[in-house]
Amino acid sequence: MSPTPQWVKELKPSAPQGTELIQAERQKSKISIEKLSNFLFTKDVLERQDKILKILEAEKVFDKSQNYFDGRVDKFKTALARAKRLRQLQVKHNWDRDDYIMANDLISEPGPYGLHASMYLTTLEGQGTPEQHKLFLEPAQNYKAIGCYAQTELGHGSNVRGLETTATWNPEDKTFILHSPHLTASKWWIGSLGRTANHAVVMAQLIIAGKPYGPHPFVCQIRDMKTHEPLEGVHVGDIGPKFGYNTMDNGFLLLNKFKIPHINMLAKFSRVDPETNKYVKPSSPSLIYGTLTWVRSTIVLQSGGVLARGVTIATRYAAVRRQFQDRDAPSGSSHEENQVLNYTMVQFRLLPLLAATFALHFTGKAMMGLYQENQKRMQVSAETVDTNRGAGPEETHSGSDLLADLHATSCGLKALGSTTAAEGLEVCRRACGGHGYSSFGGIGAWYADYLPTTTWEGDNYMLTQQVARYLLKSARAVLKGNAPNNDTSRIFTTFLQKQDMGAAHDVLGSDSDLVAAFAWRTSFLTFEALKHRDVEKNSWNSLLVDFWRLSTAHSQYLVVKNFYEALQSESLRYELDPATIDVLHKLFRLYALNTLEKEASEFYSSSAVTVRQIQLARTKSVMKLLEEIRPHALSLVDAWQFPDWQLDSSLGRKDGKVYEDMFYRASELNPLNGLTVDPYPDSDVLVKKDETSKFKSKL
Amino acid sequence: MSPTPQWVKELKPSAPQGTELIQAERQKSKISIEKLSNFLFTKDVLERQDKILKILEAEKVFDKSQNYFDGRVDKFKTALARAKRLRQLQVKHNWDRDDYIMANDLISEPGPYGLHASMYLTTLEGQGTPEQHKLFLEPAQNYKAIGCYAQTELGHGSNVRGLETTATWNPEDKTFILHSPHLTASKWWIGSLGRTANHAVVMAQLIIAGKPYGPHPFVCQIRDMKTHEPLEGVHVGDIGPKFGYNTMDNGFLLLNKFKIPHINMLAKFSRVDPETNKYVKPSSPSLIYGTLTWVRSTIVLQSGGVLARGVTIATRYAAVRRQFQDRDAPSGSSHEENQVLNYTMVQFRLLPLLAATFALHFTGKAMMGLYQENQKRMQVSAETVDTNRGAGPEETHSGSDLLADLHATSCGLKALGSTTAAEGLEVCRRACGGHGYSSFGGIGAWYADYLPTTTWEGDNYMLTQQVARYLLKSARAVLKGNAPNNDTSRIFTTFLQKQDMGAAHDVLGSDSDLVAAFAWRTSFLTFEALKHRDVEKNSWNSLLVDFWRLSTAHSQYLVVKNFYEALQSESLRYELDPATIDVLHKLFRLYALNTLEKEASEFYSSSAVTVRQIQLARTKSVMKLLEEIRPHALSLVDAWQFPDWQLDSSLGRKDGKVYEDMFYRASELNPLNGLTVDPYPDSDVLVKKDETSKFKSKL
Repeated sequence: MSPTPQWVKELKPSAPQGTELIQAERQKSKISIEKLSNFLFTKDVLERQDKILKILEAEKVFDKSQNYFDGRVDKFKTALARAKRLRQLQVKHNWDRDDYIMANDLISEPGPYGLHASMYLTTLEGQGTPEQHKLFLEPAQNYKAIGCYAQTELGHGSNVRGLETTATWNPEDKTFILHSPHLTASKWWIGSLGRTANHAVVMAQLIIAGKPYGPHPFVCQIRDMKTHEPLEGVHVGDIGPKFGYNTMDNGFLLLNKFKIPHINMLAKFSRVDPETNKYVKPSSPSLIYGTLTWVRSTIVLQSGGVLARGVTIATRYAAVRRQFQDRDAPSGSSHEENQVLNYTMVQFRLLPLLAATFALHFTGKAMMGLYQENQKRMQVSAETVDTNRGAGPEETHSGSDLLADLHATSCGLKALGSTTAAEGLEVCRRACGGHGYSSFGGIGAWYADYLPTTTWEGDNYMLTQQVARYLLKSARAVLKGNAPNNDTSRIFTTFLQKQDMGAAHDVLGSDSDLVAAFAWRTSFLTFEALKHRDVEKNSWNSLLVDFWRLSTAHSQYLVVKNFYEALQSESLRYELDPATIDVLHKLFRLYALNTLEKEASEFYSSSAVTVRQIQLARTKSVMKLLEEIRPHALSLVDAWQFPDWQLDSSLGRKDGKVYEDMFYRASELNPLNGLTVDPYPDSDVLVKKDETSKFKSKL
Repeated sequence: MSPTPQWVKELKPSAPQGTELIQAERQKSKISIEKLSNFLFTKDVLERQDKILKILEAEKVFDKSQNYFDGRVDKFKTALARAKRLRQLQVKHNWDRDDYIMANDLISEPGPYGLHASMYLTTLEGQGTPEQHKLFLEPAQNYKAIGCYAQTELGHGSNVRGLETTATWNPEDKTFILHSPHLTASKWWIGSLGRTANHAVVMAQLIIAGKPYGPHPFVCQIRDMKTHEPLEGVHVGDIGPKFGYNTMDNGFLLLNKFKIPHINMLAKFSRVDPETNKYVKPSSPSLIYGTLTWVRSTIVLQSGGVLARGVTIATRYAAVRRQFQDRDAPSGSSHEENQVLNYTMVQFRLLPLLAATFALHFTGKAMMGLYQENQKRMQVSAETVDTNRGAGPEETHSGSDLLADLHATSCGLKALGSTTAAEGLEVCRRACGGHGYSSFGGIGAWYADYLPTTTWEGDNYMLTQQVARYLLKSARAVLKGNAPNNDTSRIFTTFLQKQDMGAAHDVLGSDSDLVAAFAWRTSFLTFEALKHRDVEKNSWNSLLVDFWRLSTAHSQYLVVKNFYEALQSESLRYELDPATIDVLHKLFRLYALNTLEKEASEFYSSSAVTVRQIQLARTKSVMKLLEEIRPHALSLVDAWQFPDWQLDSSLGRKDGKVYEDMFYRASELNPLNGLTVDPYPDSDVLVKKDETSKFKSKL
């Protein structure tokens, strides 16, 4: 690669410059970005971000400039080096769990310790006895043992009951024999297992005296602690390249009559009595239920931020990029091209997603709040369970009923949130035009790494069945008059009361009516589905599409409702100025009306809204909101406070230097340009000159 | 990596085996796969495929097993080696253009000669004079010069008029001076330019005596023919990694007062007279217009096949994969898990896409037919233009009017077809559950490589404006009574005649009514948009979302209509048996009714269909069609005749050996498993043993 000539170095983008455009754009809005950021994340969290960012930026190993060039092996090696360094920094700076998570967010790539730091530690913590904590958890916390969580199998994804790996209790020597009876029993997709872990929590079917007792967790050492070679009877490795997530060593694991001692079965909830050789039942299965709910709630909260990265990049680039003149401009007027953010077609693609980032953020926060509230109530309820039998419905239902509601809610919202984020990121990428396809755009790899979220912790389609099951059950309870006092029961009751006179929701004139229209649609679809199932006796399978629609409708209702409630909160009125609240209110209406318009068919058929109002929402209200929100778009994405280092995007640079950065990365950081080839097909020489290694040394 | 232990080699997937399941599935349908394949592609084409496939499979350089592991530089090197070998094979076996395209399809990766073999040769051929053919085309055809087509710039995508590169005529020495005045003038995204090409057709603003004449094509040599180093005044390189397409060297190009002789301006249509220094106007711009129409028509045709690859993989895997028991199965019945293809939620995602593959294939074929017919008419029209002034409307409108219709049609269908294919592939990938995320699934990389199609040859959103403009123009002509006699005019006229009495399309009872309902919706939206624009005088920008909806509606109408017409064709009745025709007919109804249901809101508001029929389509007809088509799904994808070698997918294997293949690739072909790491964060050793090179030698 010849050095960049002087005449190239002197070139600038044609006027007006991106920095000028983005500055001018920023001045269009008077909302207080700082106040809004503090309201969304708290000042503490933002200060934490600054603190950690400074430390990471100073470390050479976290330099992102060569991320996109490496093959699988080098990608993984770099990721392991980063994971090690991150752990060293954690020790050095005495980071707590939140600091460590923040650092990972800023690095924004899955690392080989990922499943050790999350699922392995959590499982040992939550499902181990004090003795097991001492034996397994303590070395794991000190990274003397590196673990993972091995549940999914090659032939079995979501269906845990279908797992094939067996753990047979051997009363003779008081051991469990773990075994993979078929190829399909191979553990598969297990994060951190492929190359990194020397321990695994293996989920296996417990068998005692020939009788199966369902899947249980067993701690297995799988590799030698010194040589890191697999132990005898263990076949383990990486499952190969993926659409994204290639910095992580998702692995496979086959076990051949592999013996582990009795103490290796995690025994907090259920265990095998080594004396009697009998199974001891789990004490409180609903606590595990609770963990899944918590994991899904975090996915909902994260989905807003995940999507916001794409929206930030696309919105900033749309403020800098110009294309075509205004068609209606009088001929002879300025030849300047139009800022892309001015096009209604671009606004229509980006601004509803911008609204969705806030909607999901507030919904996720509300979910986490409910979860914590419920944990408290469960504690109280567990303590008072014996003395409280005669209390009113509010009390008796508090624990498990709220959990059932929360569980269903978290399933539906996890599906809606992660689908919205994943598909929204791709909309953002395409809204960047051709440059969105460049890795330097910063959306592609982020999208590819996020995609598994639509499948893990419950496939987004599978989950909708759980929501439907809960709604059907609730509807039956309401009809029977023995429903718990919760929001779902309330909206069903309202629907049943008004069903015969019909509804008249003024969705354009009243916010509460807008929320009520979504509740009406959920209720309508629920009682339709109930009729199909209970009266017409249709098979469960024949109703799956209806259930999916129902779950989506219900989850959209919850998001609209949570966004609405966030706007009514006192803290909002206290922390934000009226101008900012006004824009948030517009975002609420945009999210709700745009969703209503996209799902118009169900609002038509449930008669939740008049035909005229749906048409007006479509042709007038949404378009007017786009126009009103547009001047604030850049400030609203700024409020998400993503550092440039985190976004790693030429298009999403805060200073607008899009083209300079794209060009610099292509021309100066791109190892392929170190390769001079022989282009002729009849020549056997492929490469005339290879200077690609010069680029590697920049790492 | 320790060798695979014997006990692992003896493992099989748990019963029933994939081979048995897929065989049983195949026997559910009696349609003749061979006849259907011949009808879709012709016997000749399928024999060509067999012939070329045998040659490629025997060549080690085309082995696909290590495709997913390499970094950018190695990916490109392998792709160049393949491109060279492919050209050698072309010479050796005397392949014609169709053979060569077939070979590329089977290899299924973009190669560094891609833009040379397509756009460079085509442009020289179509826009060069005989003298220029001798000088530039002949060496290019013999690969003595390797070229590309440099139009897009860093700051300018779709808007050709906004290009900044200038070509200034220098009367003194009869040369053009090519120059990049700004950084944003850098050519960008140019396929084959980054490392491979030594020539480029550069689109630049022609300037004569200070006056601009718009963009014109100039042939530039950019690299030394021997050393392959850039010439003086040329800064050229690869633009960096992308979301896909990383086997291609998309490049950038900056020119510094770079002189080329007069002969290098491609002069078939317009030129500069070197004697008078005057610009000579283009003789027939509509011929260039025709080329774009042709390119877009091929994209429509290809979109069916592109999507069919994903549908093939997902359908085959859904026939092998089993998950969960039937919820309605009586307790105590068989514990076997249900075949995933049995779930209505899976059918609902996959089978409408299966229908779309056929719909797009037939539409693409019809488009190509129309294009060829038009080319003939233009020839006749050009020959008779002087003698024909007094002829009837049929004749006078034949050439340019059909072209205008065809142009608009190709824009809308290119957008709809490529969006359907791209988004459909992602639906297929997710329908494969977790394994869809593995590169061995075979959909991810194919999807990533296809994505640019939604942006190039006209961004899919931008194109919809052209469709709307044409429809508005046609509607005005119909209102004025001077419309050409074509399908668009006919459906508008019908709509205007019936508008006052309303429509009563029996979409569930009559196929022709189903087509007419789509025509009605297009017409309704067109006259609504016309009112907004011509009566209410709304700005063009404020109507872009309406235009996008209108274009989508019109294109969906065209696909429905073309599918319907294909079913009426005599050749179909002659070549296919009634059972196969019946299934194709069901696919037609599924495509149409599923689209109608998804777009129900517009069918409601245009009153094209009764509310009751839309609801029935949604809840009954579509579900019934899924059930009826399901037994034929596997045979229908088999009819697309993708060789396993082409699909390169564990999940999509024709023999159903899904899990054996996944495991083999992960365990035996995966270089990451040659790496033994030190997993402890406090150790400075990253790698204890590196045997990754063993895997490379398999290439």
